[in-house]
Amino acid sequence: MTSTTQSTRNRLDRAFNPRSVAVVGDKQALGYMWLRSLSSFKGKVYSVQIDPGEFPGIAELGVTNYLSLLDIPEPVDYVIAAVPRAVAPGIVEDCIRKEVGGVCFFTSGFAETDTGEGIRLQREIADMASAAGLNLIGPNCVGIYNPEIGLRHTAAQAYGEKGSVGFIAQSGTHATLFSILGEQNGIKISKSVSYGNAVILDSTDFLEYLGEDEGTEIIGLYVEGVKEGRRFFDCLRHVARRKPVVIWKGGETEEGARATASHTGALAESGIVWQTVIKQCGAIKVDSLEEMIDTVKALLYVKPIKGTGVGLIAMSGGQAVVIADVFARTGLEIPLLSQRSYKRLAAFFNIIGGSYRNPLDISSTFLMADNGASSLNSMLDVLGSDPGIDCIALELFPVIRPLSKDAETADPILDAISDFKKRAKPFIIIVTTANSDALATEMRDKLVQRGIPSFSSFERAAKTVKKLAEFYQSRKALSQN
Amino acid sequence: MTSTTQSTRNRLDRAFNPRSVAVVGDKQALGYMWLRSLSSFKGKVYSVQIDPGEFPGIAELGVTNYLSLLDIPEPVDYVIAAVPRAVAPGIVEDCIRKEVGGVCFFTSGFAETDTGEGIRLQREIADMASAAGLNLIGPNCVGIYNPEIGLRHTAAQAYGEKGSVGFIAQSGTHATLFSILGEQNGIKISKSVSYGNAVILDSTDFLEYLGEDEGTEIIGLYVEGVKEGRRFFDCLRHVARRKPVVIWKGGETEEGARATASHTGALAESGIVWQTVIKQCGAIKVDSLEEMIDTVKALLYVKPIKGTGVGLIAMSGGQAVVIADVFARTGLEIPLLSQRSYKRLAAFFNIIGGSYRNPLDISSTFLMADNGASSLNSMLDVLGSDPGIDCIALELFPVIRPLSKDAETADPILDAISDFKKRAKPFIIIVTTANSDALATEMRDKLVQRGIPSFSSFERAAKTVKKLAEFYQSRKALSQN
Repeated sequence: MTSTTQSTRNRLDRAFNPRSVAVVGDKQALGYMWLRSLSSFKGKVYSVQIDPGEFPGIAELGVTNYLSLLDIPEPVDYVIAAVPRAVAPGIVEDCIRKEVGGVCFFTSGFAETDTGEGIRLQREIADMASAAGLNLIGPNCVGIYNPEIGLRHTAAQAYGEKGSVGFIAQSGTHATLFSILGEQNGIKISKSVSYGNAVILDSTDFLEYLGEDEGTEIIGLYVEGVKEGRRFFDCLRHVARRKPVVIWKGGETEEGARATASHTGALAESGIVWQTVIKQCGAIKVDSLEEMIDTVKALLYVKPIKGTGVGLIAMSGGQAVVIADVFARTGLEIPLLSQRSYKRLAAFFNIIGGSYRNPLDISSTFLMADNGASSLNSMLDVLGSDPGIDCIALELFPVIRPLSKDAETADPILDAISDFKKRAKPFIIIVTTANSDALATEMRDKLVQRGIPSFSSFERAAKTVKKLAEFYQSRKALSQN
Repeated sequence: MTSTTQSTRNRLDRAFNPRSVAVVGDKQALGYMWLRSLSSFKGKVYSVQIDPGEFPGIAELGVTNYLSLLDIPEPVDYVIAAVPRAVAPGIVEDCIRKEVGGVCFFTSGFAETDTGEGIRLQREIADMASAAGLNLIGPNCVGIYNPEIGLRHTAAQAYGEKGSVGFIAQSGTHATLFSILGEQNGIKISKSVSYGNAVILDSTDFLEYLGEDEGTEIIGLYVEGVKEGRRFFDCLRHVARRKPVVIWKGGETEEGARATASHTGALAESGIVWQTVIKQCGAIKVDSLEEMIDTVKALLYVKPIKGTGVGLIAMSGGQAVVIADVFARTGLEIPLLSQRSYKRLAAFFNIIGGSYRNPLDISSTFLMADNGASSLNSMLDVLGSDPGIDCIALELFPVIRPLSKDAETADPILDAISDFKKRAKPFIIIVTTANSDALATEMRDKLVQRGIPSFSSFERAAKTVKKLAEFYQSRKALSQN
């Protein structure tokens, strides 16, 4: 470790783990979104607001208001500023004088607007913060989310538990969506940060910080552009050696890059450069929020996938054709099984109209019969010990019969799945389109509660298996160099 | 039209529009799924069952049971047979003697199992039906769905209304899923059929039939293999000239083809042959149920797309980057707007942190302000008259604020969208991942009720726009030849 990184960690620790937070400029027009989202915060919360019209609303939330940051009688570890942009320099000055641990500017309207006023103000706050060594996050962002201590940026985010996934996002929307959709998918966050225009702290600083953070085992990153390419590259290479890093580059196309300029003022690097950097560092590239969630979920819940041979189980003949097409198109192999496997399957596979070549085609009726769970168990066993199969994917309940509704039938099947998950071979569950979104959601949630998050389509599952197989392959290759 | 086609239409009309239906072999073990699904049928329903143990269950459903098809005192237009396979030849014989309009064999376990017994039985029923000119559908299928007269194959399917989309599926799962998911997406079916092993009636017969059917304006087809390639090709070319035909070929990969053999016993043609045939005939190729639904939905609800220039509106800076990347990666153009358009936008676009190059980046807060609907209207107007824009895509409400919950704010916005839909330019709505699946579903349903079905991701929307632009382009080229 370089001493720079050490100091980054020490420098950011106070802002990421604050004992006191001050919100500057929250107001009725924002629905007091900041103070409300901090209702879960374990430490002290202060408000700073000079408009007397806002005082009753703030008092109603049980928060003490001050007219200035400097009036707060105790130290302030983290500040959230939601003030008009013209006021930003004054707030930065107060933060410096108050010696806060860090400040996040929710305020936007700076260089990303490409206006003289915006550019001038951004330069002013950047110069002040830089000279004073202030940890300024943003502007134009939602800052830090630390669920363990209830530090949130929206009241829709979970809190109270400590997860193992760190998330760094240049965009507030993506930071928020990742935390909420992640939670629904069994992904729990250690710490996350959205950092917008990145005038002081950039992705590299946060990557260094989370790279060193002991509670963070996997890191996801949504980035539109980096300011110091070489430093980012060195940092990524270093961090990716120790924990998986998943990168989604926003603005990879020319048209997308045009949008990043308006969004966070990020400069465009070419998509090819990014692809090369990610590959050389042994990180994982994804292209959407869905892929980010699927990949992180698989890193968390699926055992390392060592090859591209898949064993597939579908719930009808029609779905068997589709799952085979999808996995094959994605570049995975669907090998015929060993003679020994076929002999074992023949002993109990007696579904007329079903088939057990690969994909295995069973039916939901069959699965929900009295001995359904034990048959499923036997099938998984056979695939689990077949030498050509590196990963097993099981479709659950596409159509009419809602497994989720009937605990008596469902529980033994979920038990069989849970048991098999504990064994050696990577195993993926796919909950395909049901005839009701509500039922699909119920099924997904039930599986998450059991610690076996599912994938929502054959396409997403296949893509993830491919990505993970390549990742573990490349990691092996990198470690042998 | 050839006389063959004429006779196909006449031949199948009775089975597709029956006034009486007999179910042979429905039973408790199947949950009386057939008799229950026919509770909506407008005509007469009879049961044929010889097991006295089933008589009370059938009587409870209010259905008259007979010991043989031949005992039914009136003519029978359509028969559904759910009997053990060994009994199938006897039922075929009865159908012939009874001179029914058609029979669907739900029964499976024939050639698709690759067993001597299955192959023998399949040949036997095929020979009998062929010699007698019996309209045999299947075996190993769920047969006809005609919502207008309440003829269904599952109680989850809608009935009572007459739609304009015909669907032909070799797989029962896909036929069922298309009807249910289609309904959720504003797709209403005229007639659909699942035909399984296709020993007598094949996709070509149904394509001919629906091609001639006046109530059917668009045809979707899921096919695993065809028996008479040349006849299918001629028929497809003929039908596709008059109505859009969307084709999903199951078993396009080698591995998928292996699964079709076990599923419906279909022989594999090469994927390349299919691609060529579809293209030459001016039909539209899709690769999944999702694409089938998206494409049919766009054919129904989106005006013809004449070029690849798109105007995009996203609900945050982060989403503006993503929508631009996704549409650009899909091969669409996101042009800068005309000087005139930018002048018009500047006059009212005053969102700090927003942007209006293309994508236009607005925020949900802005949209839900008092003048949100009129601003949206103005934006759509500008894009609608910009010469570089062939199609407009609008993202609705990705994150926190649930538009769906608040009718007072939502209605003027939905009105603005409905109004614009009526005007000249193709217009697509995308309801992106919300923080709750239930809210996304609610929003989707609300839009469907208004006659403006939405797309559920940028990827799916972009793919559909691309596909439709190519389709209208190729149709223009074909019509000029």
